[in-house]
Amino acid sequence: MATNVVAQEFEAANKSYAESFTKGSLPLPPARKVAVVACMDARLDPARVLGLEEGDAHVIRNAGGRTVEAIRSLAISQQLLGTREIVIIHHTDCGMLTFTDAAIRTKIQEDLGQKADDIAFLPFTDLRESVLDDVEVVKRSPLVLDVPITGYIYEVETGKIVKVE
Amino acid sequence: MATNVVAQEFEAANKSYAESFTKGSLPLPPARKVAVVACMDARLDPARVLGLEEGDAHVIRNAGGRTVEAIRSLAISQQLLGTREIVIIHHTDCGMLTFTDAAIRTKIQEDLGQKADDIAFLPFTDLRESVLDDVEVVKRSPLVLDVPITGYIYEVETGKIVKVE
Repeated sequence: MATNVVAQEFEAANKSYAESFTKGSLPLPPARKVAVVACMDARLDPARVLGLEEGDAHVIRNAGGRTVEAIRSLAISQQLLGTREIVIIHHTDCGMLTFTDAAIRTKIQEDLGQKADDIAFLPFTDLRESVLDDVEVVKRSPLVLDVPITGYIYEVETGKIVKVE
Repeated sequence: MATNVVAQEFEAANKSYAESFTKGSLPLPPARKVAVVACMDARLDPARVLGLEEGDAHVIRNAGGRTVEAIRSLAISQQLLGTREIVIIHHTDCGMLTFTDAAIRTKIQEDLGQKADDIAFLPFTDLRESVLDDVEVVKRSPLVLDVPITGYIYEVETGKIVKVE
């Protein structure tokens, strides 16, 4: 049976973090009143890239950083925890640029014997457009307050964020 | 008109990150072949808490760290980018313990004049149960491979992760 190898490594790494931990009395609402929506990509660490400390910001992440899947979280972030700005980050060399719904459905059928025809996997073909689209999805959502929204492309090659306008 | 104040601070902070950036040639697939699902909470920084470096792991985050909203991302993570272990992290003092669907729907009606009756905001009343439930959701998902899954509670008071079994 497969074992939880990485989880055990996480537990060991967490011992160091907890030993020098000094942030045990931070309040629940984010100090900087911002929610970040970003891709789950392993190379993108929103805290390091944006200079976030513990307690600063909500960070919502999924495959692609797609905002259509972040509306529940954004509504909770604003309505219950007072955030009043939104930052959206997609990135170069994104996995979402490499497949289609049809392709992943075929792979799931082959690997798992399952139909996934009803799931939108939300890939995209144009990175800049995907950011603009996702800004628009948030702007138009009736469940999200009218707050400043900024969209960026993170360059995995350079470490830079580039604003999309 | 409100301005994008925090976004401008992020751009300034990013300059420092990019100046000392040395990780421009990392591959797309996560090196440690793991996907982490965690809450968006501002006090929880999965990279610092678990010892993650850029390139190590997919990190999926939403309000509560609810896996029912992470299935699309997990399927993409496994099918296209080869992750083969899952770690789920909820945490103490979570905002999801403080409200009900009825309460947030009322607030959205008052603040935004919108009905949100069709949205499940996925709050929970028992932290340990929420982790066990979310492990089970992933285990039973027909779109997720049979891989090791570990659930933790992160203690915002101590910086420790505690395994839920």
